[in-house]
Parts: sequence; structure tokens; C-alpha cells
Amino acid sequence: MTRRIVARLLTPTDFAPFGQVIEAAGAPDRIINAGRCGRFHDRARPEIEGRTGISVFRSETVALPYSFTLVERHPLGSQAFLPMAQDPFLVIVVPDAGGRPGAPLAFVAAPGQGINIGRNVWHGVLTPLAGPGLFAVVDRCDEGPNLEEYLYDEPWTVVAG
Amino acid sequence: MTRRIVARLLTPTDFAPFGQVIEAAGAPDRIINAGRCGRFHDRARPEIEGRTGISVFRSETVALPYSFTLVERHPLGSQAFLPMAQDPFLVIVVPDAGGRPGAPLAFVAAPGQGINIGRNVWHGVLTPLAGPGLFAVVDRCDEGPNLEEYLYDEPWTVVAG
Repeated sequence: MTRRIVARLLTPTDFAPFGQVIEAAGAPDRIINAGRCGRFHDRARPEIEGRTGISVFRSETVALPYSFTLVERHPLGSQAFLPMAQDPFLVIVVPDAGGRPGAPLAFVAAPGQGINIGRNVWHGVLTPLAGPGLFAVVDRCDEGPNLEEYLYDEPWTVVAG
Repeated sequence: MTRRIVARLLTPTDFAPFGQVIEAAGAPDRIINAGRCGRFHDRARPEIEGRTGISVFRSETVALPYSFTLVERHPLGSQAFLPMAQDPFLVIVVPDAGGRPGAPLAFVAAPGQGINIGRNVWHGVLTPLAGPGLFAVVDRCDEGPNLEEYLYDEPWTVVAG
């Protein structure tokens, strides 16, 4: 039996239980630089125990349908993925069900959308759908274990919406 | 008298007095996600007093030659600019000369390069050279003044190298 997930477009409302969408949406909160630049201020809520760092991830792309069994979470901090190219990426997040991941959800982030995944929120690994697969990542860069992995017995398959 | 600055390509070594270049350069520090992804780990040194936030800036582009009189600095924190598109941007930084900015330097960041400008380092405003002008920004999102501006008496003009 295939377990199918239909990917939907990423919206702040749908993503709210899992974290924040980071994008230049709506009117800017401030206009700066003599009118040349809009600041969409403070669009994420990083929650990181220990030192916050900035890294770069470079990932191979994936295609839909996309099957996976592995999800993970980080007990000591949120993790922001900020795409460095104007390409969509797939976002897999999972409600917790009593300390284990439940049934996953899948979103497609449009070009220009980044995300901040909340601390201890189950999620899939980085899955760019096109482009160079380059992301700036804001997360915990400190000593100590900060990774919990879970393998489903059977794969989930994400299909286009 | 025109005061000319010749822009050079951004390199970590040349930029080191002012901050860090954030890019997927060299070999990844870790291979993750079952071999599919390289992590270029902990490539910046954010130094932020108070709460760290993530914002998005959307700026008009500029063209070379580019003239400016204004520079600024942030006494309470570093500021990272992470381009959300594969386009070059101009980076203007200035050595301090006894509490005032000295003579500026100009760099052109290549597609795929972000920067973290150190706390209290004089710099120009955001100046994308092409593209949508979208940047994720990691800086202080907290109350209280964190901006010092300086206007040169005469403009500086950045020209292509």
C-alpha cells in the first residue's frame, strides 16, 4: 500500500503549526535606504539554545513523486532554510504524535520563500526541486547532540498537487 | 574632484577585516542526508546583542558607476545579507579612522556569495547589481537604537574593476 501525500503550495497559515514562512509578502514594515529598499522585518522566530550560526547547504535536487522514510528533528533549536536561488523546494513537516512523527504534510515553497522550522518539529531532509540547491541555514552551531531521526516502516510518497 | 573606488571581486581574505563571506566554497565540512547534501558549516560569526531575527530586504538595483555619500554601522550587532537569487551585489565597507569612516572599499559578491558584516563596521546600504534584489537578513531585531549614520562631504564613486 502506497502512502501518498499531495503537496500543496506553502502559505504562512498552513505552515504556522510548524514554523514561519520568510518572504517579502505584503507591504514592507519599513522603507529604508532613502526609499530604495523595503524591510520585511522580523519574519521568523529563531529559538536556539547555544550559539546561533550561519551555514550553507548544497543539496542535490529531487523530483516528484518523491518517496522517503526518514524524518528528523532538532531538540535544541529551530532551523531556517533560506534559498539562495529563485527556485522552488519541497518542505515536509510532520505533526508529533506522542513523541513519534505522525502523518507527514508536504508543501512546495515558491521562489522567494524561505522557512524557519521550529525547535523539535519533525521534518524531512532538504529537498530542492530545481536549481543549484544552495541554501543559507540559520541554526545551532554548538557542541552536543541535536539530532533525532525516525525511520518509517513503509515509505511515504509525495505527489504534485 | 571625483573620489573613485575600483570594485574588486569579493574574497574571504580581502573581506576578513570587515566580516565573513558565506558561501559553499571548497569541500563541505560534512556530508548529510544520505550523501545527497553538503554542509558548509558555521561560516559566519554573528555577534548580536539582544534578540537575533531574520528579515527580508527587497531593494532596487544599482548600476556602476555608483555614487554615494552615506555609510552606516550598527553598534549592537553584526548583519548578514544572504541573497535569495543568483545575482551579484555590490558590497561597500569602510575601515574606521578614529570613530569616523575612512576611505571606502568596494567588492562585487558573485552569485552564491552572502556576507556577514561585523558589529560596528562601517558599510554602505544594500546595493544589488541585478535581479529581484531579495535578501534574507540576519541581524538584531530588538528594541533600542542600533544605527549610526555618516554622510561624507563629497561623494565617492564605485567603478567596475
